[in-house]
Amino acid sequence: MERSFIEVAPTSHFPIQNLPYGVFRPRKGGAPRIGVAIGDYVLDLSVLEESGHFLHSSLAGKKIFNQSSLNAFMALGKPAWREARAIIRRLLSAEEPTLRDNHALREAALIPQSEVEMLLPAQIGDYTDFYASKHHATNVGIIFRGKENALMPNWVNLPVGYHGRASSIVVSGTDVRRPNGQMKLLEQTAPVFGPCQQLDFELEVGWFVGPGNASGEPISIEHAEDHIFGLVLVNDWSARDIQAWEYQPLGPFLAKNFATSISPWVVPLDALQPFRVQGPPQDPEPLPYLRQSGARSFDIHLAVDLQGEKMGEPQRICTTNFRYLYWSMAQQIAHHTVGGCNLRPGDLIASGTISGPEKETRGCLLELTWRGAEPLHLANQEQRVWLEDGDRVTMTGWCQGDGYRIGFGEVTGRVLPAIRTNP
Amino acid sequence: MERSFIEVAPTSHFPIQNLPYGVFRPRKGGAPRIGVAIGDYVLDLSVLEESGHFLHSSLAGKKIFNQSSLNAFMALGKPAWREARAIIRRLLSAEEPTLRDNHALREAALIPQSEVEMLLPAQIGDYTDFYASKHHATNVGIIFRGKENALMPNWVNLPVGYHGRASSIVVSGTDVRRPNGQMKLLEQTAPVFGPCQQLDFELEVGWFVGPGNASGEPISIEHAEDHIFGLVLVNDWSARDIQAWEYQPLGPFLAKNFATSISPWVVPLDALQPFRVQGPPQDPEPLPYLRQSGARSFDIHLAVDLQGEKMGEPQRICTTNFRYLYWSMAQQIAHHTVGGCNLRPGDLIASGTISGPEKETRGCLLELTWRGAEPLHLANQEQRVWLEDGDRVTMTGWCQGDGYRIGFGEVTGRVLPAIRTNP
Repeated sequence: MERSFIEVAPTSHFPIQNLPYGVFRPRKGGAPRIGVAIGDYVLDLSVLEESGHFLHSSLAGKKIFNQSSLNAFMALGKPAWREARAIIRRLLSAEEPTLRDNHALREAALIPQSEVEMLLPAQIGDYTDFYASKHHATNVGIIFRGKENALMPNWVNLPVGYHGRASSIVVSGTDVRRPNGQMKLLEQTAPVFGPCQQLDFELEVGWFVGPGNASGEPISIEHAEDHIFGLVLVNDWSARDIQAWEYQPLGPFLAKNFATSISPWVVPLDALQPFRVQGPPQDPEPLPYLRQSGARSFDIHLAVDLQGEKMGEPQRICTTNFRYLYWSMAQQIAHHTVGGCNLRPGDLIASGTISGPEKETRGCLLELTWRGAEPLHLANQEQRVWLEDGDRVTMTGWCQGDGYRIGFGEVTGRVLPAIRTNP
Repeated sequence: MERSFIEVAPTSHFPIQNLPYGVFRPRKGGAPRIGVAIGDYVLDLSVLEESGHFLHSSLAGKKIFNQSSLNAFMALGKPAWREARAIIRRLLSAEEPTLRDNHALREAALIPQSEVEMLLPAQIGDYTDFYASKHHATNVGIIFRGKENALMPNWVNLPVGYHGRASSIVVSGTDVRRPNGQMKLLEQTAPVFGPCQQLDFELEVGWFVGPGNASGEPISIEHAEDHIFGLVLVNDWSARDIQAWEYQPLGPFLAKNFATSISPWVVPLDALQPFRVQGPPQDPEPLPYLRQSGARSFDIHLAVDLQGEKMGEPQRICTTNFRYLYWSMAQQIAHHTVGGCNLRPGDLIASGTISGPEKETRGCLLELTWRGAEPLHLANQEQRVWLEDGDRVTMTGWCQGDGYRIGFGEVTGRVLPAIRTNP
């Protein structure tokens, strides 16, 4: 197995097989720049760029890594991504002396992760959220509309999606304030205003787009994966009571736009290739523009941990897998662009909540507690139906290789109390 | 009445009382920069900035107008907008010699509008589309869901809105390609794929946000108008057959995201103050966070002209007014941010289709033809139910003052045939 000269534990998320990209700022000061995670370190690519290590590639002469976002790199496309990845992989290899034996360069380019602050990896132009898990859509449908109208007739024919809010996407570690809003519970005759009483997380996976397409020029299903730069974990915080009252007929709005958290390390699609698996069977067969040959999905383990203020340690409340998604990433991209909508480098597309067939594989509290009917029992004797102030939600994900892991790190956030407003 | 030394016809949209901002590029060459429309001219503000005319203001030392977008100016906020507007107004006044009598400066700073190309006025981070016309929401509700479910119970309690697509917003004059997509007509058992058969326009008004709010810090209704930089006309092109099939439960997606056209000149809110009017009565009384005192709306005449390829001249098919909107701009902003969602300078918020009580005041073909039941009869004996390839849709708007008009110019676009795709 290929190894780096940097020691990487078998359970580390960041072996040489991964090499996810992120934007960071050294805690000791300095401008944001782009790095790659390796073991417990960040490799500062702006240092390597400055010292000419990308000169013999299509990145030569471009300022790609001394940037505060990955957008310029995302725009270059797959051939450039592969060149850069090969160069970085070679430089980090145990057999390659260039970086390994150059003490000054190592000192300048390798920074412990504990000494950097991670930032949003991209300037996100548009954020699209799909609804691609059949288990999730069915469960939510039953809860909100009853069994008769659970899965709309369109759902098995197209990847249902909607536009989310780009401005409120925050990086892992950012506290999230409980929203105030308008809601109307079933027994009420008029809506009321106040702090959300049904705050939820949603476990999702997102991917960054590059290079994208011109307006009016769809991306075919065959080329869709060429536009996936890499993947992150997404927590699409949701206010279920606000959502239930507002969502008809134009979809969720304030229920979702107060915050969406993402993990800082963008895992390249190429790092996931060994973990490709078939997706679920699709019946009816999709229309031709959505027909994808070969294995459509990836075997990515996903989990959610919850830690309340009174809990000594986090407790795992969900274990699921990316492979449960009915619609693939490529299908979502082909659908998104089939009418001519243009995707731009740095756009974020997310899967929607990922739920599997068993109860513990459900990716949000709405499903896990069946809208409160089946509270979660926590180890410290507390119960949870919805998130409480002070709760910390941490999501993680990884592919399990033979002796190594391709990990996503984590996306974590803590719930702050709602601000007080006029009644 | 105040006059400019530049001759402005009484029917011109751009008298000295207006002074809308836009981003333009001289056709003879040069970088994009910011200007103000005056009569048939553009006043190049980058020239005035360069020559020091904003030195005695809070804009001093900033590069605000030699920019390819209005975002930096939008971020400055109302006091700076008022300072700049007062300076520009003085410089253009018939009584003020500074520009009037400086031949060289006039030559450099005043360019005929025919000699410039107008560009998108801002880099739009997020685009939000509301649904604020009660007549429109009721009509669409009846058409899509029947009289029983026409207006959802939430509609009179909150301004319903959703997130639109920022990447596909284009400036007036851009041709718009008919989208392909998935649809299922009532008599069909399975969906089909092909060119949209029910292409529509939507007459809307939009406004650009500045300075906006931090995440978690709502904008109160009292301060909401301080965040309205200025207004534009919006044509939110819509594919009704795609919309009907896809929109449940998460709202319109591909039906709207292929293109949204906006007019290039951003009319400052201050230019509209003389045309303030009461909005429609609101019953039930809104919750406190949506309660707005004083006149909430503006008397803006709006019209839509249609010209098919076989028509010698455009024909007016809709005449309506901004004042018909049930929810005000301030109410939409207060609602948008009440849960903590952050608005950023350059964000675009649009009203949704503006329809009034009479048939000719309906702002889209869906309503004007009642989904095809009542075709439009055109002067050349043609009929129209939906837009045909080659059709040009032009929207215009203006406030009628005493001897002058505060105009919006126009937003125009022509329908191109769908691209051919695999069946």
